[in-house]
Amino acid sequence: MTPEEFRRAGHRLIDWIADYRSGLADGPVLARTGPGEVAAGFPPEPPAGTVDIDELLELLDQVVVPGVTQVQHPMHFGWFPSNATLSSVLGDLASSGLGSLGISWESSPALTEVEEVVCDWMRQLTGLSDAWSGTIQDTASTACLVALLTARERATEHAQARGGMPDAGGAPPVVYTTAQAHSSVRKAALLAGFGADHLRVVGEDAAYAMDPAALAAAMRADADAGRVPAAVIASVGTTGTTAFDPVAAIVEAAAVHGAWVHVDAAMAGTAMLVPECRHLWDGVEGADSVTWNPHKWMGTILDTSLYYVRDVEHLVRVMSTNPSYLRSNRDGEVTQYRDWGLPLGRRFRSLKLLFHLRLDGIESVRERVRRDLDNARWLAEQVDAAPGWEIVAPVPLQTVCVRHHPVGAGGAGGGLDGETLDRHTLAWVDEVNASGDAYLTPSVLDGRWMVRVSIGVETTERVHVERLWVRMQEAAARAGAGIASSAGG
Amino acid sequence: MTPEEFRRAGHRLIDWIADYRSGLADGPVLARTGPGEVAAGFPPEPPAGTVDIDELLELLDQVVVPGVTQVQHPMHFGWFPSNATLSSVLGDLASSGLGSLGISWESSPALTEVEEVVCDWMRQLTGLSDAWSGTIQDTASTACLVALLTARERATEHAQARGGMPDAGGAPPVVYTTAQAHSSVRKAALLAGFGADHLRVVGEDAAYAMDPAALAAAMRADADAGRVPAAVIASVGTTGTTAFDPVAAIVEAAAVHGAWVHVDAAMAGTAMLVPECRHLWDGVEGADSVTWNPHKWMGTILDTSLYYVRDVEHLVRVMSTNPSYLRSNRDGEVTQYRDWGLPLGRRFRSLKLLFHLRLDGIESVRERVRRDLDNARWLAEQVDAAPGWEIVAPVPLQTVCVRHHPVGAGGAGGGLDGETLDRHTLAWVDEVNASGDAYLTPSVLDGRWMVRVSIGVETTERVHVERLWVRMQEAAARAGAGIASSAGG
Repeated sequence: MTPEEFRRAGHRLIDWIADYRSGLADGPVLARTGPGEVAAGFPPEPPAGTVDIDELLELLDQVVVPGVTQVQHPMHFGWFPSNATLSSVLGDLASSGLGSLGISWESSPALTEVEEVVCDWMRQLTGLSDAWSGTIQDTASTACLVALLTARERATEHAQARGGMPDAGGAPPVVYTTAQAHSSVRKAALLAGFGADHLRVVGEDAAYAMDPAALAAAMRADADAGRVPAAVIASVGTTGTTAFDPVAAIVEAAAVHGAWVHVDAAMAGTAMLVPECRHLWDGVEGADSVTWNPHKWMGTILDTSLYYVRDVEHLVRVMSTNPSYLRSNRDGEVTQYRDWGLPLGRRFRSLKLLFHLRLDGIESVRERVRRDLDNARWLAEQVDAAPGWEIVAPVPLQTVCVRHHPVGAGGAGGGLDGETLDRHTLAWVDEVNASGDAYLTPSVLDGRWMVRVSIGVETTERVHVERLWVRMQEAAARAGAGIASSAGG
Repeated sequence: MTPEEFRRAGHRLIDWIADYRSGLADGPVLARTGPGEVAAGFPPEPPAGTVDIDELLELLDQVVVPGVTQVQHPMHFGWFPSNATLSSVLGDLASSGLGSLGISWESSPALTEVEEVVCDWMRQLTGLSDAWSGTIQDTASTACLVALLTARERATEHAQARGGMPDAGGAPPVVYTTAQAHSSVRKAALLAGFGADHLRVVGEDAAYAMDPAALAAAMRADADAGRVPAAVIASVGTTGTTAFDPVAAIVEAAAVHGAWVHVDAAMAGTAMLVPECRHLWDGVEGADSVTWNPHKWMGTILDTSLYYVRDVEHLVRVMSTNPSYLRSNRDGEVTQYRDWGLPLGRRFRSLKLLFHLRLDGIESVRERVRRDLDNARWLAEQVDAAPGWEIVAPVPLQTVCVRHHPVGAGGAGGGLDGETLDRHTLAWVDEVNASGDAYLTPSVLDGRWMVRVSIGVETTERVHVERLWVRMQEAAARAGAGIASSAGG
């Protein structure tokens, strides 16, 4: 494709996206396609020849769009927000258009230096001290793996330079987290080679936050048995209920054993853009690494995970590669981001943040954060005041976790046995989700299903939360009536 | 940013990219900015307020673009091609515009199913059998890490579910590769926890390809000593010289010990799009995993690495996560790509390939591949016939590795001592690179510097290779004259 062909097709695509974004609130939230339906819209063999942009956009309209769950929809309250602000879409387009290659500083000095600048801006905007140095990873899962790899090497005094993890058989390193930690934590611990036997699930308090006394006891027991407390993953805003592990107390407990503290603030990092939320990660300055995802609530499009460390030298020592074909006259003077993470090649991802920050501005993000926190408080109040409804976890952020106990079935509310309650919960949430009117994520807490209402889509205003609350009550009432009639029949 | 604001700014950016791509051949190849110069164009503190798209594009023009090494420039012959075809730029824009979230099949059925369809098209286009299932990783570095993690778990019978790698102390798993393997192979082996002591650098033949007899001997020695031959990384097109490890013989040697064979065809995979090149990876069907990068020579923009495995069940068992908040009524019926690699969240990357394949068509890629192979053969012939010039490695692909021996210095050609020859090599290549006229990558082979001429930028035609050859001869002659005069003075 020549630049002139690109110009014509590009204008067409920009209009298509603008129209798509303008209209998406009119369609369902959850994709309506069944398994294999999208794939069936494509030939099984690679097509010969070419099509023009209009034909391709027609294919998108007919086959692809119906298969997209609309996480940009104002009635999307599922998982966590995954905002894709249009300013950051432009930044991503600029990155692709530049066609820049990040394999060394020399291959694109601008790619490296803008990433340094923007990561430092984001550090300042979240109130972190200048002891931290940042980079962009694809996701918090990868950042967690990087954290555990560097923790492993610190605990084993760089066993990778010798016999690796098999050498650590006599004093295996151990990782600590809670049952509320993101699934990527367990995955990272297993992939980093620690083994399931060396992953401790530490107890929680009533707010689903890590109990630092339980952590200290677990570490002491391991140390006494000759194992090495190597790393603690502190969740700052858990996926289930946005619980906040107490970072300061965790840092203190970890320090006794020299264990690495990684703060996973994937969702809640965005809240740190507003000073009044920063108490939620008090003690973060004592951690060794921090990650959070602008591609969630803040809305700098996927894949934009910020990863900050205090000891860059250690990170580089664990991750470094320096083959002759990447040697440069500038080695030693410049940052080589290839040695700050897993992949060698990188995109010019900082442009997504740059465009977002410059075209929309940080104040617009802060306004949204405060709006969403306010909407969550409002919803929590409604739920709290409504008969039969229960808030099942504290609401420190923008996610409200609820259960509904149908009145008249199995006694006056709350009297259902657990399995019937589970069926009821899944019945009403499935009805909401299947209708396409809104999307909510069911999740298990204390062994029973509950429903997470995660507020924070860019276009979600109070009116949408109000509409959701009405919809939830209707669905719960209908499902409850079903239980009552089956109990009576 | 509203959709209408996006429409206006987007049209402006599309024009900017079209103009930029049209004009980049007029500028230097290598960025001219020194360390810190790009960063100095930005305020050290996060800016308040906003700017409009014109002001932001002015910043790009003034500060960013001068700091970009132009890997899309027709006179770029460095590293490997990193083509960013404009058709795939549009696919990337469509992905961003859709704002889709890949964390489960349900979060975007289209994202999952188009990736399945397109990976299968690419499988067919490279002549792989339908025993292979594919996914898109960010880079071949990550794919190699995934391969070694799955190999590790096969060799240790899923030690991760028990005590992890520390349990393997009595029978440590071992990885095999050659000194020509990409730096990411060593990095992946160390990060996967094998340890430097359990990474074997197997001997090569005269063409810099792995010697399968040396591999067999090394594996036998490890097995006799109680270690477990776990994985072989076969490089199909090495970074230094595009050497091809003999896959069939490696597969045979590995089978004796049940070792995993990972084929790293990062660069050469593109060549497999033309049937006449497929003999270069003969035996690939016996491997366990294969990766290659459409984001190199083929030109589907970063980050697009294809990763194929034969045993999906094993891959998923090693990588799986299934938290309650990602459970779906469709589990078991659909592909969950989160369990095929490291990150949970993924972009809709298959659209880059879809747009590239549909707007440009596969025939245009095949024509380029054949053009570039032909250009490499032409250059190799010129070098071979020119006095003082030497081709230092076979040219099976599109990279020509050369040295120049100045005539009249230290005797009639080839008579320079090694260190003087190194200085001469770096002198002439640095002159070419610093001029901005072209870019070539110096690299070390057999302990001495040589220069890689890697042909394959989308816009590089024969005339550019001819111009490069003239430029190389001028620079080498000038550098040679310097040596002669200093030898005579």
